[in-house]
Amino acid sequence: MYSMRKISGIEKFVHPAVIHQTLVKEDSRNVEIWMQTSQPGKPTPTHYHSGEEILIVLKGTGWCQVDGKQIDFGPNSVLTVPAYTPHKICTTGDEEMQAIAVLETPVEIFNRAGEPIQLPWPYGKTPGTLEPTPSEVS
Amino acid sequence: MYSMRKISGIEKFVHPAVIHQTLVKEDSRNVEIWMQTSQPGKPTPTHYHSGEEILIVLKGTGWCQVDGKQIDFGPNSVLTVPAYTPHKICTTGDEEMQAIAVLETPVEIFNRAGEPIQLPWPYGKTPGTLEPTPSEVS
Repeated sequence: MYSMRKISGIEKFVHPAVIHQTLVKEDSRNVEIWMQTSQPGKPTPTHYHSGEEILIVLKGTGWCQVDGKQIDFGPNSVLTVPAYTPHKICTTGDEEMQAIAVLETPVEIFNRAGEPIQLPWPYGKTPGTLEPTPSEVS
Repeated sequence: MYSMRKISGIEKFVHPAVIHQTLVKEDSRNVEIWMQTSQPGKPTPTHYHSGEEILIVLKGTGWCQVDGKQIDFGPNSVLTVPAYTPHKICTTGDEEMQAIAVLETPVEIFNRAGEPIQLPWPYGKTPGTLEPTPSEVS
């Protein structure tokens, strides 16, 4: 269905480390699109998706670890992470990172153990297996 | 394949009414993603795609005509246009419009007559059937 919506009018899910908005879901037959604003120093757990993920970084800096390699990125960058590829992402510096994520549907997310998990990450909210371990944070 | 690239390093196709960059193509199995900066007062021809199109407007204002209805939009808006839906888009005001377009692949574009055409629109470059007609512009 044709639609136009203002991002300011889309519900914001405010979590300790990330503000999440779902920009597109029902209106697409092949992607979900998210807007996320992430705080520095709070890496995601290592996770993978059943579909590919594309991240368009509008503001801020960070790193992404894939296959044991860490790649730093700044604002105005595009990252692509193929399906079933474990990765983790962290915002660095003093600024928040604002990024648009384009995710192939259906969006299914798994932790390193292959257990399904859901975004946004429950930082500081539900301590447990979803929290980054000290070795992941370091 | 995992990749990270800076948008500033991606080739720019500079045309009279639009600057086009293909942010993602080979690295995705279901979308192409474009960054486009469009000048005011130059509507696209009426056209449709074989896949859906999602436009995330970062800067500027404009309108989109779909099914004979015109919807105005400002910066920080999300438009979704389903596959095979004729539409045209115009930047308004004094500012350029900057938008990210997420297109379902394969990206095939057709004019009102159902003839395949290619983006970016050749404004002022190849006068002919691809130019907006006076009735389309008005």
